Amino acid sequence: MKVLLIGASGIIGKGVDAELSPRHEIIRASRNSGDVNVDLKDKASIRAMFEKVGAVDAVVSTTGKVHFGDFADMDEDKYRIGIDDKLFGQINLVLIGRDYVADRASFTLTTGILAKDPIEFGSSASMVNGAIEGFVKSAAIEMKPGHRINAVSPGVITEAMEGYAPYFRGHDPVPAARAALGYAKSVEGLQTGQVFEIF
Amino acid sequence: MKVLLIGASGIIGKGVDAELSPRHEIIRASRNSGDVNVDLKDKASIRAMFEKVGAVDAVVSTTGKVHFGDFADMDEDKYRIGIDDKLFGQINLVLIGRDYVADRASFTLTTGILAKDPIEFGSSASMVNGAIEGFVKSAAIEMKPGHRINAVSPGVITEAMEGYAPYFRGHDPVPAARAALGYAKSVEGLQTGQVFEIF
Ligand SMILES: NC(=O)c1ccc[n+]([C@@H]2O[C@H](COP(=O)([O-])OP(=O)(O)OC[C@H]3O[C@@H](n4cnc5c(N)ncnc54)[C@H](OP(=O)(O)O)[C@@H]3O)[C@@H](O)[C@H]2O)c1
Ligand SMILES: NC(=O)c1ccc[n+]([C@@H]2O[C@H](COP(=O)([O-])OP(=O)(O)OC[C@H]3O[C@@H](n4cnc5c(N)ncnc54)[C@H](OP(=O)(O)O)[C@@H]3O)[C@@H](O)[C@H]2O)c1
Repeated sequence: MKVLLIGASGIIGKGVDAELSPRHEIIRASRNSGDVNVDLKDKASIRAMFEKVGAVDAVVSTTGKVHFGDFADMDEDKYRIGIDDKLFGQINLVLIGRDYVADRASFTLTTGILAKDPIEFGSSASMVNGAIEGFVKSAAIEMKPGHRINAVSPGVITEAMEGYAPYFRGHDPVPAARAALGYAKSVEGLQTGQVFEIF
Repeated sequence: MKVLLIGASGIIGKGVDAELSPRHEIIRASRNSGDVNVDLKDKASIRAMFEKVGAVDAVVSTTGKVHFGDFADMDEDKYRIGIDDKLFGQINLVLIGRDYVADRASFTLTTGILAKDPIEFGSSASMVNGAIEGFVKSAAIEMKPGHRINAVSPGVITEAMEGYAPYFRGHDPVPAARAALGYAKSVEGLQTGQVFEIF
């Protein structure tokens, strides 16, 4: 398969790359490195990416920023950072990409454990992850027949624990290589409308 | 208790009013009717409402518009209708209201069955409801001690079936009076961070 991986240079992206590249052709994308550059916050940039890569069999996103901060200081603008980036970045990837991908293509988005298992400072992540999960479940039943969409919800990633540990006490970290299995299940399996929880 | 009910004139709001008014003082709010007028899409209007009503013991929202439409025609702007209205309307109600409410006050927001059980044309509702549920779970653990927040997730409401039936075939409609029990549990109980599913 031809797999377009956006966020390939990231912690999770590298794990997905290592899992899928032995069996598939990976087209690596991000803002600053890889085979093709894209900024998911810019619809024209997403369109340009698909024009360049053509009809891929799988689109995988391992990107998405949200604002982490004390709930007492959170306001609409801070919540909108994650809405504009992690949510609409990934949604626009689907809404634009659906016109370019192969007939039996899949989309795999990234959510995360905070949708269900909240931490201090994480209310925007929880909100955005919930939105992504609702989107994936509903988009799946209305997509063009043959197309599929799933999300992967990783726990905190082992390779990210150096910075994240103080915020994730008691969480059982998941190696990126194990989180990557969720993406493989989505890309190489046939399920749709699922949230694969890897935690 | 003094209960501020936003959306009091709506299908669900009327049910909540009937359930709570025998035991509590209800302050009814909406854009066009009730004891106080508010437009949840306007932060200044939310602030003015709380200035007027003072320290209530419970804030209940039974409002929120999303765009219903064929997934093939959905674009970012259409998804943003629900983000701006049902999501940020209710979130701003909490973010602003928290500085005005009583010490042991609760907030109760409205999500809906489509977060989990999607229908045709409902992808924005599913997305927004997922976001509200993630927000409620996470905000609950970081709120000022004593404050509580829950969401009620009603199934399709019996009183709304005249218009909604074609889109909700196979759904078991819930009378507004039964959905109202979820709001009573949130307001009059002590749980927090919960999504009370009434379907
Ligand atoms: N790390 C964890 O413990 C963990 C756990 C659960 C869920 N998650 C979620 O997983 C996702 C990835 O996390 P990560 O830790 O792997 O992140 P990361 O290491 O920061 O990597 C992010 C990747 O996305 C790219 N990227 C960032 N913004 C972009 C944009 N606007 N357009 C296109 N590409 C962009 C980055 O490259 P460029 O900078 O070159 O663009 C990089 O390749 C996030 O949504 C995060 O919430 C992470
Ligand atoms: N009906 C169902 O079957 C069902 C099922 C599950 C979930 N829900 C959810 O429950 C919520 C209420 O649904 P409903 O059917 O009861 O709605 P509805 O009958 O249309 O009532 C909406 C209420 O909210 C008020 N309102 C609307 N926009 C507002 C704004 N910007 N600021 C303040 N008040 C506003 C309306 O009064 P004004 O017009 O005067 O402002 C009215 O009181 C929605 O979020 C809906 O998604 C509904």
